[in-house]
Amino acid sequence: MNTSQSDRGGLIAGIDAGGTSTRATLLTTAAECLGYGKSGSGNPTSAGQELAGRSIVDAVAQALAAGGKAIDELDLIVAAVAGHGASGEEGWLLQALRDAGFSGRLVFESDLLALYFSGTAAPDGYAIVSGTGASVIRSEAGRLVGTVDGLGWLLGDRGSGFWIGHRAALAAVEELDGRGAPTALTPAVLEALEIMPSESLGYGRPALLEALIRQIYRGRPVELARLAPLVFAASGDQVARGILTEAGELLAHSFAAAYQGTGPLVVGGSVLAQPGLLIDVFAARVADLDAAVELLPAADGVLGSAVLALRHAGAEVDAAGHARLAESVAAARAR
Amino acid sequence: MNTSQSDRGGLIAGIDAGGTSTRATLLTTAAECLGYGKSGSGNPTSAGQELAGRSIVDAVAQALAAGGKAIDELDLIVAAVAGHGASGEEGWLLQALRDAGFSGRLVFESDLLALYFSGTAAPDGYAIVSGTGASVIRSEAGRLVGTVDGLGWLLGDRGSGFWIGHRAALAAVEELDGRGAPTALTPAVLEALEIMPSESLGYGRPALLEALIRQIYRGRPVELARLAPLVFAASGDQVARGILTEAGELLAHSFAAAYQGTGPLVVGGSVLAQPGLLIDVFAARVADLDAAVELLPAADGVLGSAVLALRHAGAEVDAAGHARLAESVAAARAR
Repeated sequence: MNTSQSDRGGLIAGIDAGGTSTRATLLTTAAECLGYGKSGSGNPTSAGQELAGRSIVDAVAQALAAGGKAIDELDLIVAAVAGHGASGEEGWLLQALRDAGFSGRLVFESDLLALYFSGTAAPDGYAIVSGTGASVIRSEAGRLVGTVDGLGWLLGDRGSGFWIGHRAALAAVEELDGRGAPTALTPAVLEALEIMPSESLGYGRPALLEALIRQIYRGRPVELARLAPLVFAASGDQVARGILTEAGELLAHSFAAAYQGTGPLVVGGSVLAQPGLLIDVFAARVADLDAAVELLPAADGVLGSAVLALRHAGAEVDAAGHARLAESVAAARAR
Repeated sequence: MNTSQSDRGGLIAGIDAGGTSTRATLLTTAAECLGYGKSGSGNPTSAGQELAGRSIVDAVAQALAAGGKAIDELDLIVAAVAGHGASGEEGWLLQALRDAGFSGRLVFESDLLALYFSGTAAPDGYAIVSGTGASVIRSEAGRLVGTVDGLGWLLGDRGSGFWIGHRAALAAVEELDGRGAPTALTPAVLEALEIMPSESLGYGRPALLEALIRQIYRGRPVELARLAPLVFAASGDQVARGILTEAGELLAHSFAAAYQGTGPLVVGGSVLAQPGLLIDVFAARVADLDAAVELLPAADGVLGSAVLALRHAGAEVDAAGHARLAESVAAARAR
């Protein structure tokens, strides 16, 4: 027997599941946000499916509690999760939600589409995110129809935090190797990686360089993203400025590869949120491509996952509705 | 009580310990090669110290058996091992040799210096190797005094087998992503990585691309070096030709960074041993730098580790002696 929407409470939830934290909104189909919840990592790839499932259940439970509602009143949960656009592997989350008492429908969405709808209600447009990784998506009629980059640190993520941190490491290695220009990044990288000064020579090259190389290979490559803030901090340095300029250009290049005209560009992620040279170069290159492209910042995918949840529940969200929903979600987050 | 050289048999051994195999020569101080032995991986970093120690002991035992000698007749062992130039961590090998009955002296040398002396007797000169990794060393008075690159896949190894294989993977990813030129490398990479064709779309990009990306991240990055032969095989392809040309230029650039005049250039490793575009570009760029630089091929470090062993035993090896030793070692290897 099918349980129709009205048999439960007519309530829906939007989930923005990220690698650091997971956020849930509890919504009416009239686009009112009744509650908000926040928990730990909801990324099944980095945190594992069990922990990610627990985080999502926890965030939903908090949003329900904030709104004074029970989980059996929920008709629909829309979960924006990285890498779960069309994979079909949804059992890990559905089972965790069923165990918690959820009997409604679960829909997965792209985390990047959620970011997109955090910035705009326009069905056609683009989102770019540069955090640890970097990618661009294109939305058409509210659906994700194209992705550029997002290929991970080994194959792409050009202009990402990893890319910037990797370049900082290379700049330090090249200066110590005698091939690169002196740069303020070298002492900054050595300090950040806790490399101790040493005068001895190892194997025909400076011991400091040997120690730096060993320390870098001791970690996971993606951890080089931790060095990105050093590049932003050293923005008076010519080498650092070169890295930030190239990162801005690479991100604009990825956007250009996705661009087919029409629609705004929602901009997210820690790298693009940083004011200064990188975002200025990026914005200038985007304007060179098409001065009509509007850049709209978005801090996270919370609002957009709420928009996606409403759309999946059959409620359209126009520009005015988007603005009202933004206020309602912000109020729930502030409570 | 010190045991002098003459108390034992006055014999010495040279070891060329590589990641795939370990080779030992048994020598008299008169530069005669009495025996040769070969065993498995002797690289303590990749194979582990215990296995590497066993391989080296095994290769020495075979060389002794071939020469009809016992281990207590050995005065000196010179082991050319990657990454063990000046590290001082020699206990792992010394103990294994002591357990096998060796009571003489153990000296570590650079594997790249051994490659160098496989190609020449000149005390001043250069060696370049490009296999999975890539580096250049400079020898002065028979000692390693400078290294360029050899920084590993994440920080360098430019023009190496990893570098070439990584570029092949990028070329395939970029063609599938719609950003790169069509190339014969794409079907070759997909076949080599056993990616099955599929028509469905995943997450706004081709399922074939998604499958390729997943397969690449499933392996260790350095395994991309396995794709390098595809680039050599596709040498009629423009993208492949571009990769091989750039690799040759990068290797020449590393040599130029080490170059201080004087001396031959010994050339080793599977990438530079491959006839065709890459080595031709490399040789042309080296000639542009200094037409007087003589390129001397070396297949491995066996002869050079024998030269280093003789030098550490106090025997000088001049050009004529080097030629005689080469014949003697070749004869022992052929037995």
